[in-house]
Amino acid sequence: MKSDSGTGCQRVVIENISPEVDGGRFPVKRIAGDIVDVEAVIYADGHDTLLARLRYRHEKDRAWREAPLQSLSNDRWRGSFTAARMGKYYFSITAWVDRFETWRKDLRKRYDTGQMDLSLQFITGAGLIEKTLPKASRPDVSKIKNYLDMLNSEQVTRKKKVRLALSEVVRRLMAKYSERRFAISSPELAITVDRSKAGFSAWYEMFPRSASPEPGRHGTFRDVEARLPYVAGMGFDVLYLPPIHPIGNTRRKGKNNAVTARRGDPGTPWAIGSREGGFKAIHPGLGTLEDFRHLLAAAGDHGLEIALDIAFQCSPDHPYVQKHPGWFLRRPDGTVQFAENPPKKYQDIYPLNFESEDWRGLWEELKGVILYWAGQGVRIFRVDNPHTKPFCFWEWIIGEVKREYPDVILLAEAFTRPVVMYRLAKLGFTQSYTYFTWRNHKRDLTEYLVELTQTGVKDFFRPNFWPNTPDILHEYLQKGGRPAFMARLVLAATLCSNYGIYGPAFELLENTPREPGSEEYLNSEKYELKLWDIDRPDSLRDFIASVNRARRQNPALQRNLNLWFNFTSNDNLLCYSKHTADLSNIILVVVSLGPQGPQSGTVNVPLNAWGLNTDVTYQVHDLLSDARYNWTGEWNPVTLDPEVCPAHVFHIVDSAGLKRKD
Amino acid sequence: MKSDSGTGCQRVVIENISPEVDGGRFPVKRIAGDIVDVEAVIYADGHDTLLARLRYRHEKDRAWREAPLQSLSNDRWRGSFTAARMGKYYFSITAWVDRFETWRKDLRKRYDTGQMDLSLQFITGAGLIEKTLPKASRPDVSKIKNYLDMLNSEQVTRKKKVRLALSEVVRRLMAKYSERRFAISSPELAITVDRSKAGFSAWYEMFPRSASPEPGRHGTFRDVEARLPYVAGMGFDVLYLPPIHPIGNTRRKGKNNAVTARRGDPGTPWAIGSREGGFKAIHPGLGTLEDFRHLLAAAGDHGLEIALDIAFQCSPDHPYVQKHPGWFLRRPDGTVQFAENPPKKYQDIYPLNFESEDWRGLWEELKGVILYWAGQGVRIFRVDNPHTKPFCFWEWIIGEVKREYPDVILLAEAFTRPVVMYRLAKLGFTQSYTYFTWRNHKRDLTEYLVELTQTGVKDFFRPNFWPNTPDILHEYLQKGGRPAFMARLVLAATLCSNYGIYGPAFELLENTPREPGSEEYLNSEKYELKLWDIDRPDSLRDFIASVNRARRQNPALQRNLNLWFNFTSNDNLLCYSKHTADLSNIILVVVSLGPQGPQSGTVNVPLNAWGLNTDVTYQVHDLLSDARYNWTGEWNPVTLDPEVCPAHVFHIVDSAGLKRKD
Repeated sequence: MKSDSGTGCQRVVIENISPEVDGGRFPVKRIAGDIVDVEAVIYADGHDTLLARLRYRHEKDRAWREAPLQSLSNDRWRGSFTAARMGKYYFSITAWVDRFETWRKDLRKRYDTGQMDLSLQFITGAGLIEKTLPKASRPDVSKIKNYLDMLNSEQVTRKKKVRLALSEVVRRLMAKYSERRFAISSPELAITVDRSKAGFSAWYEMFPRSASPEPGRHGTFRDVEARLPYVAGMGFDVLYLPPIHPIGNTRRKGKNNAVTARRGDPGTPWAIGSREGGFKAIHPGLGTLEDFRHLLAAAGDHGLEIALDIAFQCSPDHPYVQKHPGWFLRRPDGTVQFAENPPKKYQDIYPLNFESEDWRGLWEELKGVILYWAGQGVRIFRVDNPHTKPFCFWEWIIGEVKREYPDVILLAEAFTRPVVMYRLAKLGFTQSYTYFTWRNHKRDLTEYLVELTQTGVKDFFRPNFWPNTPDILHEYLQKGGRPAFMARLVLAATLCSNYGIYGPAFELLENTPREPGSEEYLNSEKYELKLWDIDRPDSLRDFIASVNRARRQNPALQRNLNLWFNFTSNDNLLCYSKHTADLSNIILVVVSLGPQGPQSGTVNVPLNAWGLNTDVTYQVHDLLSDARYNWTGEWNPVTLDPEVCPAHVFHIVDSAGLKRKD
Repeated sequence: MKSDSGTGCQRVVIENISPEVDGGRFPVKRIAGDIVDVEAVIYADGHDTLLARLRYRHEKDRAWREAPLQSLSNDRWRGSFTAARMGKYYFSITAWVDRFETWRKDLRKRYDTGQMDLSLQFITGAGLIEKTLPKASRPDVSKIKNYLDMLNSEQVTRKKKVRLALSEVVRRLMAKYSERRFAISSPELAITVDRSKAGFSAWYEMFPRSASPEPGRHGTFRDVEARLPYVAGMGFDVLYLPPIHPIGNTRRKGKNNAVTARRGDPGTPWAIGSREGGFKAIHPGLGTLEDFRHLLAAAGDHGLEIALDIAFQCSPDHPYVQKHPGWFLRRPDGTVQFAENPPKKYQDIYPLNFESEDWRGLWEELKGVILYWAGQGVRIFRVDNPHTKPFCFWEWIIGEVKREYPDVILLAEAFTRPVVMYRLAKLGFTQSYTYFTWRNHKRDLTEYLVELTQTGVKDFFRPNFWPNTPDILHEYLQKGGRPAFMARLVLAATLCSNYGIYGPAFELLENTPREPGSEEYLNSEKYELKLWDIDRPDSLRDFIASVNRARRQNPALQRNLNLWFNFTSNDNLLCYSKHTADLSNIILVVVSLGPQGPQSGTVNVPLNAWGLNTDVTYQVHDLLSDARYNWTGEWNPVTLDPEVCPAHVFHIVDSAGLKRKD
């Protein structure tokens, strides 16, 4: 005679709680300061009235706080609380049948339908009120006794008694002491609350070894420091460095991924480890640990945070290979198994065997690596290929790291099947690489963004859009040239509050593939030092700076869930808007996705849906060109000449003044 | 170092299993003989190959059976099993990383990309094969040794070894002994398997006390027996009788719900219990228990099953009131609280207090009531107002009853908020009343049916459509007269595989409300005996018989999830179709929902979507009028004159012959 819907007197059902991920298996993600809106379906059998409360606490707090839940239509209830601090929050819902509220509702109904004799009702109500006396505080006791006297008095009129019973003051007092003996509580749901950069960031990736201004000299952290004003000047706030560790010599790759390196070839930074050390060591050519710490501080002075690369794989020379031979798979001939995806071979890289007998030792060691760099002051990590390591490893290690450093941000570099990418985000990665690079047409972009921002995905997956990476030079850039670079930059930076570029290849319009059909760069920086002429006159640095300025100055561009696609009359024109909840900031973006040549069309400004006047003239200000246009109503013409600029980022001037007054 | 996604070597994730209800909290519903299609998303980190099995068993079986799961796109897997018997089934999914399959895939890739030296691969493969020897059966051991010899032999060519390794026979043998040490199993999900009548039934409700052919004489079970050929002749297979128990005298209601009964007024059958007994007793005016059992048998001879009414509420004269005073709520003046929904009062009915101290005793007693009637041979129950009793009570009692009688069918008579109606279905009710009665327009009907047949609702909620009940005479029937009755009958009977009518009121077109705006019948049979002239020439009995005949002869009409709404050019014409999976039976229904007068329009027959030829002429046969039409292609004209008949139920003749041969 027991079931999990309660026994005997436990009659309330709480279901469909949102936000939640996989029935509470994983935490929801939010940013510190966010208001968390909680909804649930709450009901019981029969017609009794329910009360419900939202309970929540930060992981560091012992006590639960309570917020009210309001009843909406169709048994839905809603409440909210502010997730003020970083770290984990927990929340649950408690609901119960409330005798006094039920009585009040019944009394009101009888009174409204004209029932004259309410004496039995008053006796019942007095009985319910009386029951609260033993729990009530001293000042409340006297209030309660006073109400009781009135309800029981023969001198007080029926009308006055009803007015008293239905009063707000009595309602509040009774709710305070409501009998919760048979309350039902939902399971606790978790929220991971990150700092604001988790939700709004602009990344710049560069190879420090190519930061040298002198041809042929290996760049150093000092050179990177010299580059900081350049990167900060473009408006970025995260500077991500590929692995900074010693690089293996054994089977080192040569230029353009040649199987044999030539003398002086630097090898790929992802072949980690040599006699000089492994994941905690610094490549001698880049400098010392002290240099690195100096760079961290200098970057901070420029408003830049350094992000490091976590690539858990070893060169054949990594110290682990000798010290922990059990952490590597061996082939029948006794050699260590190198990384391979036939016909591709990565002879210079040994994967770690997460299924070794000593997996516990390996996990602990790797946790030590992240904690080591966090200890140096690094708080952002880009994690290489997380999808080739077990899911449970990531859930564990991220939990351990964030318990100590809740401000750590981890970006998952997984380009794999959708369910795997989403799983990694659920397990705890703060941000994730996406398929954006391969979404180049209107329908593809629209469908993908709707999936990311309007489905359950939005509660756990924070996209980070990259038009290029050292591994991915998309055909769109190869063939589209400068206008394509500009369009993809605007799309990444305005569709997605987190985005990044791999530079200076990006701003210098580097777009030659290793061979036709390949997404690899010719003479890729992955295998050689590069000398970049960042002062080239055709550089996109000023354009990038204007895009990042628009992002910083417009709060509408600092979120994703406010994205709204707008109709255009030309399928080569993509139009979308983002706005703040109060409509004080509205940005409307139009991007030409089309082939060469100017594109014209009419775009829709959904003024009516936003509750704005549709019959007025207003000014739109293009934050890229600084041009201003006077528009009227919902439909307005746009022409984009990609040779000039393939995008408008319009700010609607004085949008608050357009609000309908009805 | 542990999480529920596995530790160390447990790498597989199984999620999004379907069918399931609320994450497995409630069983899914199916009919005995149904093929249960199971899908899930199954994946692991990295690129290893997985194997997965569907495990299932009937509750009476100890051993689990296994069925294969096939990998589809995007990490989805699918498998199926037949739920052959009534009762509960359980199923789960087991999946694991398979070393041998991974090796085979890798070998194939290397071979296909032209790698010449595969000797290390053969050694690895032989090692995996060898590991199965200790587990293998004797005949398999010799096969395995044979394969090993071939793989290890220097005489066998590379090509032959590859062919052997990739052969189906080796794949099967290795799958049989696959290492499942680190397999992950999903939680077990339950399925309630009912008999076929749970999914396909035609109900006829009648008051036995009005079955008498003589004016003023109380009808008896014998009179009901005499009415059986009439009911069976119309094609019904369930005969549902309102409560057959003694009716209370205290505060008995008079005609038209008068507060005071006049001498001879029979009272409402839902005011249960008198000195003659309660829920297990029979109203003396209807006959004896022996008469009832005779009726059960006679009904069976006519292909009819008797359904009884479970209304757990008491008249003031019910024996419980004296024997178990604690089962009733008392008012402050000491009287028992009668049922009330201000301003409505049901002075003749005392609700049971499910929150009494002795709720356990009450639950046990009520369970005894259902088991008593099941013991008499009754297997179908219509349950009155289940939403006013606790959810946990229903989950418990239905579980208890179905454990003993898995063939019991319970119809929930809850007309309340959507979440409550759905909750009751989840808790175990076999069929449910619906909002059909209040869905009269094209959009309302379409939206509601899409909700019932194309959302998660379909897995737990079996709708039963009623155009009328003794409590509900909808305005549509009040104002629409005969054509409205015909249209609503066709809609109920063809939209929904389970449907019912309250007769003879329905076939005799009874449509006078107690007062304008009321859904109550004037001179409602709930409060008085009625004499029905079932032989009236305007009776719909023959029309009803033709509709039920169409249902019985066409398997397409015996299911709901095959419903498909088709476009029509006239919003007063609703068109929909149902077909069997093999398209051997296709029914296309057109119903006029409009106001008086003929309605014409073009209807779409989605031949192309069904994979049928669109450029041929075919015959449609109206199963109601027996008319035949030759149609061509997808668009054909229809005219319905409601004065003749407001509906076509077309059978597409020789639909299998229209299949495209491509």
